[in-house]
Amino acid sequence: MKAIVNVYLKEGVLDPQGKAVHHALGSIGFDNVSDVRIGKQIILELNSTDKEKAKEELDEMSQTLLANTVIEDYDIEIVE
Amino acid sequence: MKAIVNVYLKEGVLDPQGKAVHHALGSIGFDNVSDVRIGKQIILELNSTDKEKAKEELDEMSQTLLANTVIEDYDIEIVE
Repeated sequence: MKAIVNVYLKEGVLDPQGKAVHHALGSIGFDNVSDVRIGKQIILELNSTDKEKAKEELDEMSQTLLANTVIEDYDIEIVE
Repeated sequence: MKAIVNVYLKEGVLDPQGKAVHHALGSIGFDNVSDVRIGKQIILELNSTDKEKAKEELDEMSQTLLANTVIEDYDIEIVE
C-alpha cells in the first residue's frame, strides 16, 4: 500500500525557504505569484492491507517523527 | 488561485533522506514500512484566474526553477 504524508508549516509560521523561492521566481519574470510556501511530501510503501489500521499507524508516525507538530501540520493520503 | 507543485526524485535516484527516515521509523518500532521517499511540496498563491494559463506558467516555473529535471519529476495541481 502506498501512502503520502504531506507536512507543511502552520499558518503564521515564517517560511524563509518559501520566501527565497518567491523572490527567485520574481527575479526571473514570474510576477504573478503572491505567496509561496514549501512543505515536505513523504511517500511511504507499507506492508499492510488494512486501510484503517494503516491510517492510524501513519498518524502515529507523523506525530512522533515525520512532523514537528508545534510548527507543522500534516495530512495523510492513502494512494493505493 | 492556489496551486501545488509536487517535486520528487525520479525512480532509481538514491534518496538518502528517505533512507534515514525509513531507518528512524524502524528504530522506533514501525517495521511495517518497506520504502520511504521524500519530496518537496511547493504551494503557490497565484494572481490569476485562467486555469490553463496558470498551468502553463507553473510548468515553466517547474522546468526553470522548482525542479531539477535531470533527477526530479514533478506534477502540478490546481487546488482552487
